[in-house]
Amino acid sequence: METSISFRYEQLAELIVGMIDNGVLAPGMRVPSVRTVSEQHRISVSTALQAYHLLEDRGILVARPQSGFFVAAAGRGALALPSPSRPRARASTVSICGAVAVLLEHASNSALVPLGCAVPEAAVLQSTRLDFALARAARQHGSRYNVYCAPQGELSLRREIAKRAVRIGHALSPDDLLITNGCTEALMLALTAVAKPGDTIAVESPTYFGLLHTLEVLGLKALELPTDPKRGVNVDALARLLDMEPVAACLLSSNFNNPLGSAMAEADKRALLGLLARHAVPLIEDDVYGDVHFGRARPKPFIALDGGANTIYCSSFSKTLAPGYRIGWMVAGAYTQRVMERKLAFSLCGPVLPQVALADFLASGVYDAHLRRIRRIFQENLVRMTRTIEESFPADTKVSQPAGGFVLWLELPKRFDSRLLFDEALEQGICFAPGDVFSASRRFRNCLRLSVGSGWSDRVENGIRRLGQLAREQLAR
Amino acid sequence: METSISFRYEQLAELIVGMIDNGVLAPGMRVPSVRTVSEQHRISVSTALQAYHLLEDRGILVARPQSGFFVAAAGRGALALPSPSRPRARASTVSICGAVAVLLEHASNSALVPLGCAVPEAAVLQSTRLDFALARAARQHGSRYNVYCAPQGELSLRREIAKRAVRIGHALSPDDLLITNGCTEALMLALTAVAKPGDTIAVESPTYFGLLHTLEVLGLKALELPTDPKRGVNVDALARLLDMEPVAACLLSSNFNNPLGSAMAEADKRALLGLLARHAVPLIEDDVYGDVHFGRARPKPFIALDGGANTIYCSSFSKTLAPGYRIGWMVAGAYTQRVMERKLAFSLCGPVLPQVALADFLASGVYDAHLRRIRRIFQENLVRMTRTIEESFPADTKVSQPAGGFVLWLELPKRFDSRLLFDEALEQGICFAPGDVFSASRRFRNCLRLSVGSGWSDRVENGIRRLGQLAREQLAR
Repeated sequence: METSISFRYEQLAELIVGMIDNGVLAPGMRVPSVRTVSEQHRISVSTALQAYHLLEDRGILVARPQSGFFVAAAGRGALALPSPSRPRARASTVSICGAVAVLLEHASNSALVPLGCAVPEAAVLQSTRLDFALARAARQHGSRYNVYCAPQGELSLRREIAKRAVRIGHALSPDDLLITNGCTEALMLALTAVAKPGDTIAVESPTYFGLLHTLEVLGLKALELPTDPKRGVNVDALARLLDMEPVAACLLSSNFNNPLGSAMAEADKRALLGLLARHAVPLIEDDVYGDVHFGRARPKPFIALDGGANTIYCSSFSKTLAPGYRIGWMVAGAYTQRVMERKLAFSLCGPVLPQVALADFLASGVYDAHLRRIRRIFQENLVRMTRTIEESFPADTKVSQPAGGFVLWLELPKRFDSRLLFDEALEQGICFAPGDVFSASRRFRNCLRLSVGSGWSDRVENGIRRLGQLAREQLAR
Repeated sequence: METSISFRYEQLAELIVGMIDNGVLAPGMRVPSVRTVSEQHRISVSTALQAYHLLEDRGILVARPQSGFFVAAAGRGALALPSPSRPRARASTVSICGAVAVLLEHASNSALVPLGCAVPEAAVLQSTRLDFALARAARQHGSRYNVYCAPQGELSLRREIAKRAVRIGHALSPDDLLITNGCTEALMLALTAVAKPGDTIAVESPTYFGLLHTLEVLGLKALELPTDPKRGVNVDALARLLDMEPVAACLLSSNFNNPLGSAMAEADKRALLGLLARHAVPLIEDDVYGDVHFGRARPKPFIALDGGANTIYCSSFSKTLAPGYRIGWMVAGAYTQRVMERKLAFSLCGPVLPQVALADFLASGVYDAHLRRIRRIFQENLVRMTRTIEESFPADTKVSQPAGGFVLWLELPKRFDSRLLFDEALEQGICFAPGDVFSASRRFRNCLRLSVGSGWSDRVENGIRRLGQLAREQLAR
């Protein structure tokens, strides 16, 4: 499993981050010397040094010649966290299509500094091994796979995904799985399996705009749930809402809400599952960011906590390996037959060769090392992005502290207008996501999401600085 | 275009088939000598001979040593055509999921003689060039395409499809096109763009069961239209029905209805378009079989006759090149924005590399020769299948005379039960499609569909003979 094969210097680095997070090590404080920690933890000096250099790279420690390593002064938490959301306690019809289309059009424009779209860049993903597996499958077995595959997807891929399920803490067999066209199709199939037009779906607030768009097109209403930027959905508030309003399903991120990067504690997840079970409300969970965790252990998704009794699990490889392959999967439990009927009726089955290639790639055993690499890149990005925001945005800007993923959520004073900033930024060749598209009731106009799915670069850093300056200018007007 | 690059011997062969069809040449009659036709048509003797051998291969002519070529005695039309359908004039809710799932499960079982599923076999499709294009794209440009593409699909592929549009008689630009996950997704997007649950969709009777399944899952009702096995939908009957019942859309095959192989005359198509326009009922057309035409010219789809004013055109490469690639496309005209919103909400976009590979393949210019080859194979299959049915099924069996495609529709006496035959045939290792799944009101229990998407073989021929024998035995009981 993850823990046993992660490197010792990474374990040490995480330990130190933990000590900073819980205040044992304060900004500016000298951290124990390399020699001390190597003795304390029975590791070599070079391993300890490697950990310190890693944290230096991430901007968490600074090295001072002849003095050792110190906790970076402008480190974590110089800016406050965004406020927990307090949406109105009523379901709203969604009307967001136009705004989403405009955003996506700009987000795919490669001439703009790409802070708008939460998609990892191909250069970071390094999918060469996967692409070569596809080339091999096409060359050697093209004819064999030029058929409709089963609607649940290629068996070899379902086998590999089932094998990996131990990592999310939930045993799966290939028969439990359905391969989809990315997580978007999985969520759509899940929603149509449990709800009909006019029904209400409870979602986090803020939540991913693509999800709101899907609700709108399916004629579903959104009930926005109070959500904390670190602890996720407020279970007590959900309990009160369920007593007031009929809800057809709850649709939540398993871990690392987009855009907040929040993760619910396991106890809260269990409380939420119990609550939903009592109300017979199914939970649809979106776990696309679960593998991009910064803590040592991957937080469990809901399905691992209720055994799938009341849960439809959805995920994909789009955030960690191959957005261009469009491969997602789902575990629909009690809803499997309804979901399969919909898959068959809506798209018959997916293309076969990409599935065969991905099965091949997963079987090769390199995916875990790949995940470690991209986690490191994204965590470094977020540290650097936070630092850049601290240096360039208005001092009262609040910023999220994600436990995973690669986006940050910024909250500015109420009078700030992120739509105005959006227009100004586009003129200067910078794209980001304005806050109002993350809410069915178009809240969060004073917020914005910045995403860095690429490697860190001057272009990205200067783009963020420029945004900060524009925000300061707007508030000074 | 097609005509100018098709081979002269094929033109001659079609001419002779036409003379047989319209009775100028009767069964048993001697056809003009090779020398005579070569002089008449100013072609070489070897070209004329090639045409005669082609027709001999297809079972249309027989060669008698020292006497020349004769129209085959048991040729076309020895069995009567199925009756035009007379469905009830009321929309019905559809309840077919279970039957379709059972059929598909058996249809994908390679241990059975595959007469059940209307899908061309990989060995016939010979997709090596396409597979190599995919391998090349993955190896050389994998990283470049490891991104979400635009929801309307890869521009290079839309360009190639637009270039080919001249062959269907309708000018298109890449912006008019949306790439889909096969024709199934195209039809689903079209249906959800024009209709809401509870609405009625007018369809041919019989029609493709997958379509009925999609209607059921979308909560749409089916209004079955009287359909002639050669001339397709009865426009007068449709006119009467439109006066009686509100219809949200009409969903028809452009050419070669599955299972009948019927094709409406161009005048009837125009009349139908006029009628629908007057009632403001949009037409969704499914043209997946249009390129598998047996006549010289490709019959025009509806969109070429109304310029797309009231038409949503859907097609795919699944019946002619690559079922495993799952690439379809649609032209949604006035509904483009609604369709695009749905594509984005339901599956975001399709996988990129298969689209790039297909664009490459189409640009290479070999697709037309490929189409000529598979048309020849499928036409020969149908002639041989018809002959085998004549020899083995009950004498009062009626059989369709498709103008394209690769399926035959058989009608047996009313007391015949194709479900019973289905169960008996499965026990003997043979799969076909029983008639009742082609109707929302589960008519056609005395009918069945046989599909031969493979090359002709003893296994296929013996499978059909065995079915014929089982049918005779059932009727004799």
